[in-house]
Amino acid sequence: MEDSIDLIPGGGVTSPRGFLAGATSAGIRDKYIGRLDLGILCSQVTCTAAAVFSTNKVKAAPLILSEQKLQKNKVRAVVINSGCANSNTGKQGIQDAQQMGEWAALQVGTTADEVQVSSTGVIGTYLPMERIRSGIERIVLSAEGGHELAQAIMTTDTVPKEVAVKAGDFVIGGMAKGSGMIHPDLATMLCFLTTDADVEVNFLKKSLREAVDVSFNMLSVDGDNSTNDTVLIMANGGAGGEKITAGNRQARIFGKALEKVCLHLTKEIARDGEGATKLIEITVCGAASDTEARTAARTIVSSSLVKAAVHGSDPNWGRVVAAAGRSGAELVTDKLELEIGGIRVVNGGEPVPYDKEKVVKHMDGQEVLMKLDLHLGNGKATAWGCDLSEEYVTINSDYTT
Amino acid sequence: MEDSIDLIPGGGVTSPRGFLAGATSAGIRDKYIGRLDLGILCSQVTCTAAAVFSTNKVKAAPLILSEQKLQKNKVRAVVINSGCANSNTGKQGIQDAQQMGEWAALQVGTTADEVQVSSTGVIGTYLPMERIRSGIERIVLSAEGGHELAQAIMTTDTVPKEVAVKAGDFVIGGMAKGSGMIHPDLATMLCFLTTDADVEVNFLKKSLREAVDVSFNMLSVDGDNSTNDTVLIMANGGAGGEKITAGNRQARIFGKALEKVCLHLTKEIARDGEGATKLIEITVCGAASDTEARTAARTIVSSSLVKAAVHGSDPNWGRVVAAAGRSGAELVTDKLELEIGGIRVVNGGEPVPYDKEKVVKHMDGQEVLMKLDLHLGNGKATAWGCDLSEEYVTINSDYTT
Repeated sequence: MEDSIDLIPGGGVTSPRGFLAGATSAGIRDKYIGRLDLGILCSQVTCTAAAVFSTNKVKAAPLILSEQKLQKNKVRAVVINSGCANSNTGKQGIQDAQQMGEWAALQVGTTADEVQVSSTGVIGTYLPMERIRSGIERIVLSAEGGHELAQAIMTTDTVPKEVAVKAGDFVIGGMAKGSGMIHPDLATMLCFLTTDADVEVNFLKKSLREAVDVSFNMLSVDGDNSTNDTVLIMANGGAGGEKITAGNRQARIFGKALEKVCLHLTKEIARDGEGATKLIEITVCGAASDTEARTAARTIVSSSLVKAAVHGSDPNWGRVVAAAGRSGAELVTDKLELEIGGIRVVNGGEPVPYDKEKVVKHMDGQEVLMKLDLHLGNGKATAWGCDLSEEYVTINSDYTT
Repeated sequence: MEDSIDLIPGGGVTSPRGFLAGATSAGIRDKYIGRLDLGILCSQVTCTAAAVFSTNKVKAAPLILSEQKLQKNKVRAVVINSGCANSNTGKQGIQDAQQMGEWAALQVGTTADEVQVSSTGVIGTYLPMERIRSGIERIVLSAEGGHELAQAIMTTDTVPKEVAVKAGDFVIGGMAKGSGMIHPDLATMLCFLTTDADVEVNFLKKSLREAVDVSFNMLSVDGDNSTNDTVLIMANGGAGGEKITAGNRQARIFGKALEKVCLHLTKEIARDGEGATKLIEITVCGAASDTEARTAARTIVSSSLVKAAVHGSDPNWGRVVAAAGRSGAELVTDKLELEIGGIRVVNGGEPVPYDKEKVVKHMDGQEVLMKLDLHLGNGKATAWGCDLSEEYVTINSDYTT
């Protein structure tokens, strides 16, 4: 019974007890006027928190600031805007992020050091501070506000991405945004996770790192990663009960539930990749190690040629094999075995006769699954991405102008 | 006078003395019937030769065979087909490549160990050997045959790529194919270079490696690299004169001329990238080292977001900076300076006012130049690529079917 992890229909970041959220239309970009673009997520009490930030050496101002504040692992709220990344904005950008955090702290009724600041959107433009100020003042926080907030953090996303699960005595909720510029090691991807479990800080950090490693870090939309990526988790202990720590009763189920939430959002992001029409799931098994399997799976799912072939439902498996070959993962050509949609198309490194109509039919669907067995060892990993469509190019040819 | 390196108008692989070529329509793929798809390049005497092959761990049969044969560094001819890569074809593929080399040797009048074999096209299909045999028998070799051969090696290329230069006492000619799947470390890119200079083998190897390093290895069309990439140079000594060796009279000019030929072909390939409408040239300077500059330049030119922005003439410089940031090259955000078409758009890591109309006009042209100065050291490198268009996706969604 302890092992059941159940999806909460219509759930999101305010599903766990003691979390509130709200959003408003601040007009961060003129073309955003009338849509939600600014919001706050907060807990009624201060949370234990952990986060994973972008590995990009160019870091946005809010990320630099939030990373500093998070050293105490105490977070009460996070204020988030879309439309402007506040990246490459120098000292002014840092001041603006600080100011935004202070206004949000006032609105929530806490101190600025407990307010994380997060931005997503165009790089190299400054925040419209007057609109941010009046926007924050208009935000009304409620236990139903998670859905509005999930909309407010969208940029080129076409749908909000939300999930919540109930497991053990607690609930974990989450929301994410990100469609272009997504890549292993995070990329203009924001994800906010909440839980009413009471979690010991080091176990929370470790659990988050492990969950991100098999989910968001195995996700690629276009090979780029951004200056603003953040996955933040806040645990407020509202469910009561024993504190979850490494090795105790609920540790395992907490880790599994967190992974489930992260995997759900990862697939939602891949499915909603810019211009995407299909989700691609690549599993590499039989690798010399899990690390080698990760490398191969991520390279395949990032290959423009593979992505374009999937778009056209073209079983051009040579591109899959060639991508694995250049990934750096150890492999032996004559041992390769590839399945598309459960149908074997390559064995011993060579093509085998297969029902092409069936494979094309699978590739015409919304989820294209491939499994590449290297037949070398026990290493295994799965990566997610999306097809490359003409629409992707159209979206990205004309973003700032 | 020794330093002048002059383009030979209409030149190609048969411009140097003693080289012959010819091509035919063998019908390697049914849809290729009526177009040139098989040919031979040969020298009247055995050449000193050197080559750089794909680093992909999945290697095509002709590449495995040619690499073995080249250990002697003696080459009289190369036989090349398009339409079928003869990759992932197991033992049969190796036998077919051997047979193809033997037939070509008979046609040229030499032994098979002096005949390189090269293939490009779809992975995982077997060569139609009867068509190869009768095709080879039909090939007529002539000193004007270089142009036909340059056409025969094309796949999705829209134009043949040829060049020849005269320098010192000698001539260097070259041809290349490759438009999709091109990436640093070579990728379904074939390049054949000829010279009538008499070149010592170790110096020839070193010169080729150096020229490839600053040209083809700095080229990216779509981030993929292939199982068949080859750059081969054949030196037949037909120009007479002293043997060129490291440090002697013509060594420097030979290296420079070879680099010029490789750079010319590199830009031609980038310009003709699948669906490309523009050539992109990214120079990174002020890096901690040349290696760091190479890393940053190659990452920027490979970024789908940068490529799509260039396609739409969108000066979305944030993507350039973000790509540099994730490249792994050392950089400090506040020191970054970026020019597009000679116009400074970023300084000290922040946007500066600039004439947007002028920048867009530059980006509307056929060559888009960007220079990113990291202001850290003296490292410098240039990389080439092309824009990402809707047409790229269309081409690559439907290649095998």
